[in-house]
Amino acid sequence: MLVVMNAGATPEQIEAVADKVRELGYDPHVMPGKTRTAIGITGNRGPEGREALLIMPGVEDVVRITVGYKLVSRETQPESSVFSIAGTSVGDGFTMIAGPCSVENEKMIIESARFLTEQGVKLLRGGAFKPRTSPYAFQGLGIEGLKLLAKARDETGVGIVTEVLDVESAAAVEEYADVLQVGTRNMQNYALLRRLSIARKPVLLKRGMAATVEEWLLAAEYIMAGGNRQVILCERGVRTFADHTRNTLDLSIVPVVQHLSHLPVIIDPSHGTGRAEYVPAMSRAALAAGAHGLIVEMHPDPRTAMSDGQQSLDFAAFAEMNVSLRPLADVLGIVMK
Amino acid sequence: MLVVMNAGATPEQIEAVADKVRELGYDPHVMPGKTRTAIGITGNRGPEGREALLIMPGVEDVVRITVGYKLVSRETQPESSVFSIAGTSVGDGFTMIAGPCSVENEKMIIESARFLTEQGVKLLRGGAFKPRTSPYAFQGLGIEGLKLLAKARDETGVGIVTEVLDVESAAAVEEYADVLQVGTRNMQNYALLRRLSIARKPVLLKRGMAATVEEWLLAAEYIMAGGNRQVILCERGVRTFADHTRNTLDLSIVPVVQHLSHLPVIIDPSHGTGRAEYVPAMSRAALAAGAHGLIVEMHPDPRTAMSDGQQSLDFAAFAEMNVSLRPLADVLGIVMK
Amino acid sequence: MLVVMNAGATPEQIEAVADKVRELGYDPHVMPGKTRTAIGITGNRGPEGREALLIMPGVEDVVRITVGYKLVSRETQPESSVFSIAGTSVGDGFTMIAGPCSVENEKMIIESARFLTEQGVKLLRGGAFKPRTSPYAFQGLGIEGLKLLAKARDETGVGIVTEVLDVESAAAVEEYADVLQVGTRNMQNYALLRRLSIARKPVLLKRGMAATVEEWLLAAEYIMAGGNRQVILCERGVRTFADHTRNTLDLSIVPVVQHLSHLPVIIDPSHGTGRAEYVPAMSRAALAAGAHGLIVEMHPDPRTAMSDGQQSLDFAAFAEMNVSLRPLADVLGIVMK
Amino acid sequence: MLVVMNAGATPEQIEAVADKVRELGYDPHVMPGKTRTAIGITGNRGPEGREALLIMPGVEDVVRITVGYKLVSRETQPESSVFSIAGTSVGDGFTMIAGPCSVENEKMIIESARFLTEQGVKLLRGGAFKPRTSPYAFQGLGIEGLKLLAKARDETGVGIVTEVLDVESAAAVEEYADVLQVGTRNMQNYALLRRLSIARKPVLLKRGMAATVEEWLLAAEYIMAGGNRQVILCERGVRTFADHTRNTLDLSIVPVVQHLSHLPVIIDPSHGTGRAEYVPAMSRAALAAGAHGLIVEMHPDPRTAMSDGQQSLDFAAFAEMNVSLRPLADVLGIVMK
Repeated sequence: MLVVMNAGATPEQIEAVADKVRELGYDPHVMPGKTRTAIGITGNRGPEGREALLIMPGVEDVVRITVGYKLVSRETQPESSVFSIAGTSVGDGFTMIAGPCSVENEKMIIESARFLTEQGVKLLRGGAFKPRTSPYAFQGLGIEGLKLLAKARDETGVGIVTEVLDVESAAAVEEYADVLQVGTRNMQNYALLRRLSIARKPVLLKRGMAATVEEWLLAAEYIMAGGNRQVILCERGVRTFADHTRNTLDLSIVPVVQHLSHLPVIIDPSHGTGRAEYVPAMSRAALAAGAHGLIVEMHPDPRTAMSDGQQSLDFAAFAEMNVSLRPLADVLGIVMK
Repeated sequence: MLVVMNAGATPEQIEAVADKVRELGYDPHVMPGKTRTAIGITGNRGPEGREALLIMPGVEDVVRITVGYKLVSRETQPESSVFSIAGTSVGDGFTMIAGPCSVENEKMIIESARFLTEQGVKLLRGGAFKPRTSPYAFQGLGIEGLKLLAKARDETGVGIVTEVLDVESAAAVEEYADVLQVGTRNMQNYALLRRLSIARKPVLLKRGMAATVEEWLLAAEYIMAGGNRQVILCERGVRTFADHTRNTLDLSIVPVVQHLSHLPVIIDPSHGTGRAEYVPAMSRAALAAGAHGLIVEMHPDPRTAMSDGQQSLDFAAFAEMNVSLRPLADVLGIVMK
Repeated sequence: MLVVMNAGATPEQIEAVADKVRELGYDPHVMPGKTRTAIGITGNRGPEGREALLIMPGVEDVVRITVGYKLVSRETQPESSVFSIAGTSVGDGFTMIAGPCSVENEKMIIESARFLTEQGVKLLRGGAFKPRTSPYAFQGLGIEGLKLLAKARDETGVGIVTEVLDVESAAAVEEYADVLQVGTRNMQNYALLRRLSIARKPVLLKRGMAATVEEWLLAAEYIMAGGNRQVILCERGVRTFADHTRNTLDLSIVPVVQHLSHLPVIIDPSHGTGRAEYVPAMSRAALAAGAHGLIVEMHPDPRTAMSDGQQSLDFAAFAEMNVSLRPLADVLGIVMK
Repeated sequence: MLVVMNAGATPEQIEAVADKVRELGYDPHVMPGKTRTAIGITGNRGPEGREALLIMPGVEDVVRITVGYKLVSRETQPESSVFSIAGTSVGDGFTMIAGPCSVENEKMIIESARFLTEQGVKLLRGGAFKPRTSPYAFQGLGIEGLKLLAKARDETGVGIVTEVLDVESAAAVEEYADVLQVGTRNMQNYALLRRLSIARKPVLLKRGMAATVEEWLLAAEYIMAGGNRQVILCERGVRTFADHTRNTLDLSIVPVVQHLSHLPVIIDPSHGTGRAEYVPAMSRAALAAGAHGLIVEMHPDPRTAMSDGQQSLDFAAFAEMNVSLRPLADVLGIVMK
């Protein structure tokens, strides 16, 4: 940390801050400048004590230097994490996850799984428990939806990625799913994160719609701190003033996350844009930006989808996009999974 | 809803949309314009069918007209809601809620309750379960904290406002608290909202840090839809590019909420600004803007606070601010509670 | 400035950074921490050299400490600035500025000036040159509008506040106006700021719709650096995700500006909210927050206004609001101007 | 436009709105719904009259349907625009523009031009007039800088892209430059846009840092409406809460602009990210997203750059990135220019 004093801070105020730093068990380094004095602090392991310093007379600001996450940091683990999932992997190539927003019935989910298998896709997404802004909207099939997903896996061999909404249903979702998805609204649902920290399945953690990269990595730290080392980060767009897309897809977070953390990061272009017609362009951009994969909404008949129809690709559009990714991946030296 | 067609939409595409509207059970009203055709839809009760229309050929956009909330709407209930709580009320005056960020020990919470009682304040806030961005930060005293709050109530008669973090601890918090607070990160934690919808205590629902007013009111609708009619809305600042305060306190939402809903709305200037020195000005502004009250962080000794010290008023500063509010309230014809 | 090194930075990299700091003419203060080393820099007067340091091997970040503005800073001038304008003043009370968005014709502007004079208001706003998002929208009456404003002043004695859009028309506006308004889109129009820095009239500088407080104060610094010491800051709402108001009115910037600068700061609740019905509540909130005044849109007949009708008060609504402010000001010990 | 009435609007209020619509010369289409009535409006060419309707009794909102731009719209001109510039073109492939933030001296700009020519790049960027947040920062070499750019063109044949800051210097910049760049702070500087609308050189119009796509296209409309049909749009990141990059680069605007307009759109990954290390990933993503080109900051020695050093690539890094783009473009069927 670094304490910045007011231009008019007195020598007594400066000395009092230095004393307080020592009292906290740290070492103060007083640096008198032309217009103001700064006091560097070493020996601390985090921002503890910052608040006590902030309110001392003469203090203008206390700047944090060290980030709060440890286990997710690339400084802790220089090599990139790779997770094996249902016969494929995430973190060592470009992994495609696709499927409908919601599991609606057996026919559509089996059909989707079969189509994906033909396309060489190994992971099926589909919501059984749906978080909906309105209490009156379709909330998903629940356990019945999980069973249909399991049936799709039995028939085709695809792995299952599905959302876990709350602690209550976590055991059930863990039983059926291969990857436990945490939605944007739950990124800081700490009870849920703690529950998932003792799960034995990988967690796909979506970025909160107004989360900084540090908050996102700290949410991942909650999961890792409890013992679950398998966290996949997923950017799905953030909330800004822009109104031409449902959210603002922040692709530049891909190289930033890869600089800060060893965890894989994938992209959700469907929620990121909110319109199926923009998904292929953003999917190709995600690949070119270096993301580790995609999670894409796809539906046998988007016109009849019970949720997110306008951002779902139909089979033909998905196939066209999927085909367009392969030569790009080849050129980039990336293995499509 | 209103369907907006492309400028180049063909008569066949327009007719197909009108047919689809009829198929959905609604009435289409085709309105040919100079550059494009719009199709008004009546007979619908919500946005159902919007997605199916959005993806039809020739459709540019489908504009939603009706909002999704009903029970929280002032159109449903024209008179403002007032809730009786612990010998005071919220919704018919300006109600002060104050206290420390966290319950730290018996001495400080009893001291705070006694001081508030002397100040004429009837509601004590204090966190027993704390949501923290870092898994390594102080997470609150838990049940022990709830017991200390109850003790403060026993000794002074103050009502207790405290946060409920998850379904697991909801029964315990409900047992001890007079008002159940939902934090900004949990505004769309639907399992929690559903649990609180069957609670018999009022809920103080903080606005999500990136929530629109419609999303906020829909979160309140979740609680009301389950049977709990007592919801107090609380603005605590939203996340924007601005970096001079911890959040951007959006006071203009006060008259907007009062236009749209019958529910009371209060202000949290402590999280809204993040610095104690700005709290008094924003508290007076909240009163003048017509808010129904405040929830303010106050601590016997902010320098030693275990959380949020820099945004907590000490007793002297709180008393000074509280005194300054009364003549303002008098002039505005508002009863201080 | 403070250089933060990577956790894995080598002693050679640290020494190279220290050498570079010396080469820049500053003093390095190396502070080894538990996980990483920081290097404090003193002797610099601004962020010069930051970029050269940022790209050195082993450097994680270079944190700026000192702000770039000087003349606007309260550290430079502790006492608050007060400007005398047209028989009234700004900076030592609560100054009302009101009038139509655009000067539309002689009748409406004279009528507005007379009404304001009756209300005790000394400053009339009105646009002769209008910045419009669309090239096809009404762009103002230009010089003719300035002459009508001057006529209103001749007949009633009000001072004139009007927008200067560009360098070309600056001389004309300066000739007729008492206060030169700079709009939100022009806050960083440096040619215009430099031109106004040699004007002999006070400048009302609106905050850019996405400007940080530092950028805003630096824009004011442009004006002061050229010799014009009379700058009035004006908050008019910023652009955020929120959609319930035209902009998000950031009232908390009032105490922040007053902490950082000696310049007066006023509020524009009309653009801040975009709806006339929310203007009175926000005007009272601005007064209670400690602002130095308001600039409010008012029109003899908002239904026929050529611009901004939906956010303009009619005479009756303005009078009602104005009357409601006086007792508030009395209680707060603030003089209404 | 569509008028949405309150749920409680009376038949008289509805009739009054319909009358007002007729008075404005348009046609009202009254659509009674279950909970409220909407009134469609046809016959209008834009939002004129919206404000008069918004303030009528019983009116909840007036929704705009038609956008305000015409000449920039793809509905007006279905085929994509292509502009020939200095022996290359923009709009029919992927055009690279690169060079230093500022022209600093003859040696560095000639060196840059020579290097680019070797790399097959045809357009050199370089600032002679620099917009700087602080009045005390380096403001560019001015006319001298323009002459150095012209010299670089004479020696190597590159075309020149340079910023025009104000009307005063527009003639000089137009004399020397091949493309006139408008910076983010000037996107709504209407005097400048009008001046450029009569220039005979193409304009590169950067998106305002908080501009919606409609505002951006309307700024382009200002230029086209005056007679200059050659506008190149440039996304350079927008301002959001995110703090991991200098701005948030909004790549999804590429397919959106291409849907709405026939104008080419290019990407500035240097300002978009603010760090040289993230530029290559975002450049490849821009190509994959379908952008028409890049404008990239590059410097012979970023460590000594007078501005933007931390976001400038050195020659080796630029060459590496440039080489990596070609096979991607080949696979995508896009011609590199």
